[in-house]
Amino acid sequence: MDHLSTTFQALADPTRRAILARLSTGEATVNELAAPFSMSLPAISKHLKVLERAQLISRGKEAQWRPCKLEAAPLEQATEWMEQYREMWEARFDRLDAYLQELQAKEKVVASPKKKINARNKK
Amino acid sequence: MDHLSTTFQALADPTRRAILARLSTGEATVNELAAPFSMSLPAISKHLKVLERAQLISRGKEAQWRPCKLEAAPLEQATEWMEQYREMWEARFDRLDAYLQELQAKEKVVASPKKKINARNKK
Repeated sequence: MDHLSTTFQALADPTRRAILARLSTGEATVNELAAPFSMSLPAISKHLKVLERAQLISRGKEAQWRPCKLEAAPLEQATEWMEQYREMWEARFDRLDAYLQELQAKEKVVASPKKKINARNKK
Repeated sequence: MDHLSTTFQALADPTRRAILARLSTGEATVNELAAPFSMSLPAISKHLKVLERAQLISRGKEAQWRPCKLEAAPLEQATEWMEQYREMWEARFDRLDAYLQELQAKEKVVASPKKKINARNKK
C-alpha cells in the first residue's frame, strides 16, 4: 500500500481519530489512551499498531511506559493532497456569493420605489 | 460507518484518488475514466460505487451516459478535520526555523573576527 493510502486507511476509524486528537494535547501511555474508551487494552493496542504503521504516532523506547506521541508529517502530506481540491469548494462558495449578491441587487431594485415613497412622505 | 470514516476509507486507494483528480478537471463518463487505467470496466465501476457511497462523486441521471462529477463537500469536511493538526506541523517548522537562526547567529560570532582581519588587510 502506498504511503498516502496507508494514512487515509488509518484515519478511517473514529477511535483512531480520537486517539490522535488526545495525543495532539501531549504524549500519553496506552493506559491513559484506553481510559476514555470502553475498550479492552488489546483492542486499543491494535489501533495503536495501525497508527504506528502509518507513522502517525511514534512510541517511546522505555519498555514499561512506551508513551505514544503524535507525528504530524503524514497528516501534513494528506492535507497537501486535499488542498488541490480547495479551489473547487472555494469556487462553489464564490458562485453562492455571486448568487446572493444578485439576489440583493434585485431586492434593491424592488425596494427602491418604496424608499422613494417613504422619502416623499418624510418631506 | 460515520461520514468522515467513509470519506477517508474512499480516499485510501490510489485509483480512486486518480479518478477524483481526473474529475477535478471536469465531468467524465465511466469509459473516459477507465481509459488511462489498465483495468476492466467492472473494476472501475466498483471504485466509482465506493466514491458514490462516500458522496465524493455524483452521477448524471441519463441512463446511457451517467457522467460522473466530483463533489467537493466531503473533501472540505475531511480537510477541516486535518486543519486542527496544522498548528502541530507549523510548530515543528517554527522550531526548525529557531534552530537555523541559532546556528546562523553562532556562525556570525565565529565569522566576525575573520571579517575584522580581512577588513584590516584591505586597509
